[in-house]
This record gives sequence, C-alpha cells and structure tokens, in this order.
Amino acid sequence: MRIEVPLPKAYRLLNHGPVTLVTSCHQERMNVMAASWAMPVDFDPPKVALVIDAQTLTRELVDASGEFALNIPTLALASTVLALGSASGRTVDKWAHLSKIAAQRIQAPLIDACVAWLECRVLPEREIERRHDLFVAEVVAASADDRVFREGRWVFGEQELHTIHYMAGGRFHATGQAIDADAALTPIGRA
Amino acid sequence: MRIEVPLPKAYRLLNHGPVTLVTSCHQERMNVMAASWAMPVDFDPPKVALVIDAQTLTRELVDASGEFALNIPTLALASTVLALGSASGRTVDKWAHLSKIAAQRIQAPLIDACVAWLECRVLPEREIERRHDLFVAEVVAASADDRVFREGRWVFGEQELHTIHYMAGGRFHATGQAIDADAALTPIGRA
Repeated sequence: MRIEVPLPKAYRLLNHGPVTLVTSCHQERMNVMAASWAMPVDFDPPKVALVIDAQTLTRELVDASGEFALNIPTLALASTVLALGSASGRTVDKWAHLSKIAAQRIQAPLIDACVAWLECRVLPEREIERRHDLFVAEVVAASADDRVFREGRWVFGEQELHTIHYMAGGRFHATGQAIDADAALTPIGRA
Repeated sequence: MRIEVPLPKAYRLLNHGPVTLVTSCHQERMNVMAASWAMPVDFDPPKVALVIDAQTLTRELVDASGEFALNIPTLALASTVLALGSASGRTVDKWAHLSKIAAQRIQAPLIDACVAWLECRVLPEREIERRHDLFVAEVVAASADDRVFREGRWVFGEQELHTIHYMAGGRFHATGQAIDADAALTPIGRA
C-alpha cells in the first residue's frame, strides 16, 4: 500500500544512494529517465540535488514545468531501469510500458511499479543549472510502499523488492544486509 | 594494494551512493566527517557535489583550503563512521585513532582503512555554497584498493570489505548482490 511519508523524513527515501527514475511532464509531453546522480541536500524543508544533462528531453520538460518526481525502483525493475537510461524519450515512448499513478502535488505522473516517490519543485539556481547541469529542488510530497518502508525506515524483505544502486556497464547492486552500528572511535588499522 | 584509478573512471567509485568520510586540512588543522550527501556530477573531468553544513569544522577547513578528499569506508568501519558523524572535530581529535596516508594532489590526508579515495579541489560556486551548503569540486586524483576495485569496477568479496550506505538512526546497509541487467522495456505492472 502506498503511504504518505512525512516531509521531514523524506530524505530517508534517498539517503542510501539508490538509482532513481525521474519522471517529468509539460502539457501533453511526458518522459522518464534513469538517474544515479540524485541526493538529499536538506532535511526540513527537504531538498534534493539532481543532475539533468542539457541534451535530454527531461531537461526540456523540467525547464518548462519546474517540476519532476524521483521514483525509486527495485531489483525487479533493473532491466527496465537500464532501458530507460539507454534510450531517449525523443525517439521512444518510454511510458508505453509503464503504469502511471497520479502525483499529489505536481503534474508529472509517478511510476506505479516503484516503491518510493519524491515529488519535487525546482528552486531556480540558473548558474549551476547552466554550468553543471545541477538542479536543486524542494520535495513537496513524499510517499512509499509500506511493504518496504514503514515508520520512517526501509525494511527490506524479499529480494525482488530491494532498492538497487547503479555501478556502470549494466551492473547494479542490491541494497544489502542491514548493520546497526553503535558509534565507536576505537583504533583502526588497515582493514 | 592501493592503485591509481584513471580520472574518467573516478565517478564509478561513488556512483552507487556509498557513505563517505570527508577529510580536510588547513595549515596545522585537520578534520574528518561522515557524509552521505555526496555524488558525481560529471564524468571527464570528473566532478562531485557534496553538502557541508555551515557550522562544521570541515566547512571552515574546506573554505580555507579549497580542498577535500572523499574516502570510501567499508562495513568493518560502520561504528567508526557513525562516531565520526556524531562528534565535532572542534571537541574531539577524530584523527587520533585513524591511520593516515598521503594524498597525491592535495594537502588533506587520506584514511588508510578506507578502500577508495577521491581527491577534490573546490570549484567556486559561492551562491549555492551559501544558500544550500552545496559544494561542487573537481576530482584531481583517484585511487582504490585493488582487493575490491579492479579494471574500473567494484568486485566485492568478503563481507567486511563491502562498501556501505547510510540510512538513519545508526543503520547502514552493505552494498549487496550484483545484478547484471540487459536493457529491456517490457510491460511491467505493479511489483
């Protein structure tokens, strides 16, 4: 079930560095692209940073609408993520095979098969957009699938629903084993 | 063994979103802090973005020196990472228990017990530093431990040497199982 995530905890959806799918829309045009280069930059109000290459259709739609969503996919979607990251929305209708759900606060649709969603409005930072393709945006709504995110934290069960991290060359790694650490500054040598 | 990573492949050390340890130094003063909010923003020359809170000693040292290093720790260091992220270098000598190695291109030392290192020089972007504590830097040297990074890719073996991703509340997740995907845009419903 899709549940609301309180905005001050929205950063937790993205804090571990999973690959994302960026959805965007302006008037009748929509697109989706894969992006590993997304991260939180603030807690409350939550903000994110995202790199959007200047040549992409997503850039055109985000520039025109001032909005995008970060959708967090799972291991079951690895091949889809790779495909969405390899083709351009200018030549392929990437939405043809994806089920949409409506966002709460923005026009861009969300991808139903993902497990977490951050709806974002761009904060105008024209200089870094131009020089580094880097966008800063405020998260205006956040939600997650309660099979894997409950009470403000990820709780992974079956392998197919784990989030994934992109390396290069078609290789992903699943988000793996949980480790609960106690802070300890003890002498450490070389591992 | 620590091996050089060619600069156009340096982004691969950070692409999967692991937690990092940021080392910094100015004249006689040195510090290290934990940071999850670091990501690549360009391939060649490689650039990274990093959030450095305005109140931290690291911010003071990075502002003064224009340099920092991103050190990538392993599961064996989870408790250390948590401790380094919980205390301020203004009150604790965080280096007291860490073995240093010399960087190649910057003054800040590297942490010997980590498995990858990106040496960075800040690109002045004063407006986003001030508004969002967000820094953009060029990677001027990169290296990795060849037990886990070889021929341009991560190859994880024993669990202790896996990189880790930070969630919240002391919880990390190891970088898990590798998945080699073939791009495929087939109809997908809800997972």
